[in-house]
Amino acid sequence: MQKFTPQNPSYEQVVRDSFSRQPFMALMGAQMGQVAPGRCDILVDWRQDLTQQHGFFHGGMVSSIADSAAGYAAYTLFPNESTVLTVDFKVSFLNPSKGDHIQASAEVIRAGKKIYHVKAEVFAFSDEVKTHCLSGIFTMMCLQGKSDAANLGRKDEVS
Amino acid sequence: MQKFTPQNPSYEQVVRDSFSRQPFMALMGAQMGQVAPGRCDILVDWRQDLTQQHGFFHGGMVSSIADSAAGYAAYTLFPNESTVLTVDFKVSFLNPSKGDHIQASAEVIRAGKKIYHVKAEVFAFSDEVKTHCLSGIFTMMCLQGKSDAANLGRKDEVS
Amino acid sequence: MQKFTPQNPSYEQVVRDSFSRQPFMALMGAQMGQVAPGRCDILVDWRQDLTQQHGFFHGGMVSSIADSAAGYAAYTLFPNESTVLTVDFKVSFLNPSKGDHIQASAEVIRAGKKIYHVKAEVFAFSDEVKTHCLSGIFTMMCLQGKSDAANLGRKDEVS
Amino acid sequence: MQKFTPQNPSYEQVVRDSFSRQPFMALMGAQMGQVAPGRCDILVDWRQDLTQQHGFFHGGMVSSIADSAAGYAAYTLFPNESTVLTVDFKVSFLNPSKGDHIQASAEVIRAGKKIYHVKAEVFAFSDEVKTHCLSGIFTMMCLQGKSDAANLGRKDEVS
Repeated sequence: MQKFTPQNPSYEQVVRDSFSRQPFMALMGAQMGQVAPGRCDILVDWRQDLTQQHGFFHGGMVSSIADSAAGYAAYTLFPNESTVLTVDFKVSFLNPSKGDHIQASAEVIRAGKKIYHVKAEVFAFSDEVKTHCLSGIFTMMCLQGKSDAANLGRKDEVS
Repeated sequence: MQKFTPQNPSYEQVVRDSFSRQPFMALMGAQMGQVAPGRCDILVDWRQDLTQQHGFFHGGMVSSIADSAAGYAAYTLFPNESTVLTVDFKVSFLNPSKGDHIQASAEVIRAGKKIYHVKAEVFAFSDEVKTHCLSGIFTMMCLQGKSDAANLGRKDEVS
Repeated sequence: MQKFTPQNPSYEQVVRDSFSRQPFMALMGAQMGQVAPGRCDILVDWRQDLTQQHGFFHGGMVSSIADSAAGYAAYTLFPNESTVLTVDFKVSFLNPSKGDHIQASAEVIRAGKKIYHVKAEVFAFSDEVKTHCLSGIFTMMCLQGKSDAANLGRKDEVS
Repeated sequence: MQKFTPQNPSYEQVVRDSFSRQPFMALMGAQMGQVAPGRCDILVDWRQDLTQQHGFFHGGMVSSIADSAAGYAAYTLFPNESTVLTVDFKVSFLNPSKGDHIQASAEVIRAGKKIYHVKAEVFAFSDEVKTHCLSGIFTMMCLQGKSDAANLGRKDEVS
C-alpha cells in the first residue's frame, strides 16, 4: 500500500462534507466509513429496495458506492478549491452481492496532476461470511478552481 | 444494427415482469421504455435525490440504469426458464448527466450460448438539448434452468 | 457520426508521421488506412507470428492496433505541438479474430480539452466473411507542449 | 492472496506448452516466468521494435503480455482437455512503460465454472527503479472439451 501526503490538511472534513451533499448516497442509506490519505470506505445496510430480482444488492447500486468511494479516495489528495469527476470505470462482478451489509473500499493506485487511478473492492458481510462481490478500476479527474459545493451548470467544459 | 430472433416468443412480457421485480429500479423511479429483440430502453426523470453534489444525476445511478437496460437487452434473447447476471461492465462518462430526464439504450452486439456482449448509451434531455452522457460495454451471462423469480441463495454457483 | 473540425490543418501528415515512429506497429506489419478528423483505421495482414495457439490473431495484438487507431483518431483533433497518451482502455472480444486481415476503425465520441473518449471496432475479413472481433472504449489524453517526436524520459510527469 | 487447488496435476507443463504455441509471444521475445496455481508471470526485455514513438514499450504490447499472463493464470486451474479464451479486459496505464524489462504478474481473483476473473499488474524495471505501469482486470472463459493445441476454426461457437 502506497503512502500519500494530502495537499489539503482538512482533507477528511472536505471529503465528508462533499459526501453529505450527494443526495443519491442518502437515498441508498450509504454511510462513509474510514477516510485516510488516498483511501475511503462506504457502507450500506441491506434494504429490500436496494435489490434486484433475486434479493441481492443490485449490481448498479453496488458499483455506485464503489464509484463514490473511489472518487472520494482520490479527493483526499486534491488541493483546496477543487472538485472530482469520474472519467470512466470498469467493474467485474465476482459473486452475487448478498449479505446484511456491503462495504466498498477504494485506494488510489496512481496520483497524477489531473488524472487519478483508483481501485475499489466491494465485500458483502452476513454473519460469519465475507464475500468478494466486485473488483474495479476507476479513472478520476481533479478539476482545480471549481467549487465542489456549486452547481457547475450544463454548459461548463469539464474536461 | 443486427437483427435477432428471440427464442422465447413471450420475451417482452418476461422482460417487463423481471424489471418489475427489481426494487432498486423502483426506488429510482426508473421506467422501462421500448423493448425489442436484443434491445431495451430505461428512462428516469430528474429528482433531487438521484443527484451528486453538483445537481447532476449521480454517475453510479446513470450506470445502474445502463446496466439494467443491458441485462434486459440480452434477456430478450434468452430461452424460457433462465435468468441473467452481469459478469462485468465498463463505462465512460462523456458529459455530466444533467437534464430533465435521462434514457439508457442498450443493444446486444454479440449473442453467444452463455455470454452476451451488449453496448449501452445514456443520453440526458433538457428542453431542446440532448447530451451524450455515458457509453459502455457490458458482459452478460445466461443462466439456464434458473428461475428469474426465485431467490438464488448465497451458496449457488453462478458461473 | 459527429463532425469534428481539426485544430491543426496538417493533422493527417502529423498522424501518419507519428505512426511511422511506432516501431511496434512496424513489427506487426500494421498499416495506417483512412485518416479523417476524429477517425483512423489500422490494418494488418495475417501472419503466423501474430497468432495465439489456435491460429487466430492474438487478442493482445488485436487490441494493440485498436489502441493505436484510437490514439490517432484523437490525435487528429489535437493542437500543434502535442502528443497523445492512453489513459486506459477496455475491450470485449466478440468472436475469434480469424481471417486474411483485420481492420481496426476508431472514432472519437467526445473531444474534451485534455481527455478524449474514443470507441474502436475490429473486424476480420476472409474471402466473403466479415467478422466483428472486438469492441472497445479508449480514454486518451492530450499532452500539450510535448513533442511527439522526442523521448519523454522516465521522470517526466505525464498526467 | 487466495489458495487454489489445480484440477490438473500437470497444470504447469500444460501452461508452458500452450505458451510455447503462441507465436505472437515469441515475436515479442516474451518469456514465461513463475507459474503457480492461479498465478502466472510473463517477462519481456526492452527492444527498439517493441516501442511507441517515445521509446517506451507500446501500451498495446504491454497489455498483450498482461492478457497472456491473465489467461495462463486462469488456465492453471482448468481441467484437462480444455482451452482458454479472453472474454474481455480493461487496463489502466499508470505510468509510461520505460525500463530495461517489464514483467506482467497475473492472479485469479474468482474461479467459477466457466468464467474466471483475473487481475494483472505490469511493472517496468530499470537499474534500481521499479515503476507500476498497468493495472487491469480480465475475464477468461474455460472451454471444456476443446483441445488447446488444435485450430478451432472460424465456424466454431466459442461462447
